[in-house]
Amino acid sequence: MAEPHFRRVALIGLGLIGSSIAWAAHRSGAAGEIAGYARSAATRETARRLGFCDSVAETAAEAVRGADLVIVCVPVGSCGAVAAEIGPALAPGAIVSDVGSVKASVIAQMAPHLPGHVHFVPAHPLAGTEHSGPESGFAELFDNRWCILTPLPDGEPSATARLRAFWEALGARTDEMTPEHHDLVLAVTSHVPHAIAYTMVGVADDLRRVTDSEVIRYSAAGFRDFTRIAASDPTMWRDVFLNNREAVLDILGRFAEELFVVQRAIRMGDGEYLFDYFTRTRAIRRGIIEAGQDTAAPDFGRIARTEKERAG
Amino acid sequence: MAEPHFRRVALIGLGLIGSSIAWAAHRSGAAGEIAGYARSAATRETARRLGFCDSVAETAAEAVRGADLVIVCVPVGSCGAVAAEIGPALAPGAIVSDVGSVKASVIAQMAPHLPGHVHFVPAHPLAGTEHSGPESGFAELFDNRWCILTPLPDGEPSATARLRAFWEALGARTDEMTPEHHDLVLAVTSHVPHAIAYTMVGVADDLRRVTDSEVIRYSAAGFRDFTRIAASDPTMWRDVFLNNREAVLDILGRFAEELFVVQRAIRMGDGEYLFDYFTRTRAIRRGIIEAGQDTAAPDFGRIARTEKERAG
Repeated sequence: MAEPHFRRVALIGLGLIGSSIAWAAHRSGAAGEIAGYARSAATRETARRLGFCDSVAETAAEAVRGADLVIVCVPVGSCGAVAAEIGPALAPGAIVSDVGSVKASVIAQMAPHLPGHVHFVPAHPLAGTEHSGPESGFAELFDNRWCILTPLPDGEPSATARLRAFWEALGARTDEMTPEHHDLVLAVTSHVPHAIAYTMVGVADDLRRVTDSEVIRYSAAGFRDFTRIAASDPTMWRDVFLNNREAVLDILGRFAEELFVVQRAIRMGDGEYLFDYFTRTRAIRRGIIEAGQDTAAPDFGRIARTEKERAG
Repeated sequence: MAEPHFRRVALIGLGLIGSSIAWAAHRSGAAGEIAGYARSAATRETARRLGFCDSVAETAAEAVRGADLVIVCVPVGSCGAVAAEIGPALAPGAIVSDVGSVKASVIAQMAPHLPGHVHFVPAHPLAGTEHSGPESGFAELFDNRWCILTPLPDGEPSATARLRAFWEALGARTDEMTPEHHDLVLAVTSHVPHAIAYTMVGVADDLRRVTDSEVIRYSAAGFRDFTRIAASDPTMWRDVFLNNREAVLDILGRFAEELFVVQRAIRMGDGEYLFDYFTRTRAIRRGIIEAGQDTAAPDFGRIARTEKERAG
């Protein structure tokens, strides 16, 4: 096994992302040892039982002591409080990072609490599932997924390079951009789609004329993909919307505007407009499959095609 | 193999649904023989090559001759024209059905062209993938999926029962409701989610500040589930929206209203409202998994969890 990228990695927060980092670091040997901390005693207990950390500390400060890499893996609304807690215990030269889905707000929350002798390199692995908690993590979560780093203007390039190499060892591809651009890109690719999916599931749940059991039974026709998105962790998503408010409202506004145009085409019976619109959106899907970010298997591979070749 | 449910089944339209019915009927022995027809010569040629029909006719009228079950599998905007074409050639006592995602409009289009000596039983299998065409069909498409029948008030119950048994032989579960209720249920579970997904993908494509390649690269964060939905057949979906206009506009209106409420909560920073909202939507997802209409595997099972049990 190769030399570890960091001697001691501290993970603050041991949910889906924290535990998956631990599993992936074990798999690759990227960390000499892994120290973990979670605010909830039950999570610490589960982490000890599953054994994905070499040690699970009783305080965040204790976990980060002596670590050369600290990754804060908590909902973005709690990053400031964690930074305040660990700040005084951080070792000189340590790299401090996070995994938040919003970057400008996390930087504003954390930076004031971090001592000058550490390197703060914010990052965001674009990976996740609709499950949460320490039992939902697995080593392959980041394989072939992107991790976006948003280094600060006065940051040390070598610290950024070391963190990139670490994420690549976990299986991810890496990229860099400014925090503000990150927040806009994610509003488009993630935050607004989640807001929309949550809303549509809420509408279905509210309707009196269609029962919940009908919605559930007939969900395979498209709706179930929305429910998967809308089943994601409520705390995480509340914090994302509160902390990326401007970009989300900007894109939501664009979406509402566009929805009215589509709605008008339906009302006016403008078949040509609808056909052209729906044809254009197919091309983006092809791009995603070609970029290796999804499978071309029908229906996400939910169905095997084993019978295809049999005689007619 | 059991006695076939129908001696001769004619399929008019040999795309994803038509070809899958043929494969599923072969698998179960539900059809004595299968005659097919498609408007496009290229599709007929492909169907002959793949061999999922016992015969592929050059006209729709020829295909339905002598058939005791005829299933029209064309976009809902073309059902009326097909009914006019096959009407005079239908055998006395034949059951005529369809697979359209909209029922009231299909009934209005087809019924006037069907002779009094056939039984018209409209139906809608809730199954599909984002792929289309004769090469995309497979025998398992309907397994454990629902097929909704919307019999006419003056219909013959035994014809409905025979069609139900046929769909169950293809692997589907069956249900009955009125055409109007079907159209509302599908507006909620399918048509509006598709309109929303198409719109969001269109918004992403239009933005100048975020490039298409960024959208594609970072789609795994939620957006790619929308692109799968928005990659469905443009002709089929144009026809769905034009033919289920009232129910779609009704539910789209509700959605827009609700979206404004969510948007306001984000603008006002109402975290409690958002958290409660997102918690409620999780329950619906659980219902869908319990009802067997989706997998509980994270991320639709895109990722294997093989490393989960290894030592920490």
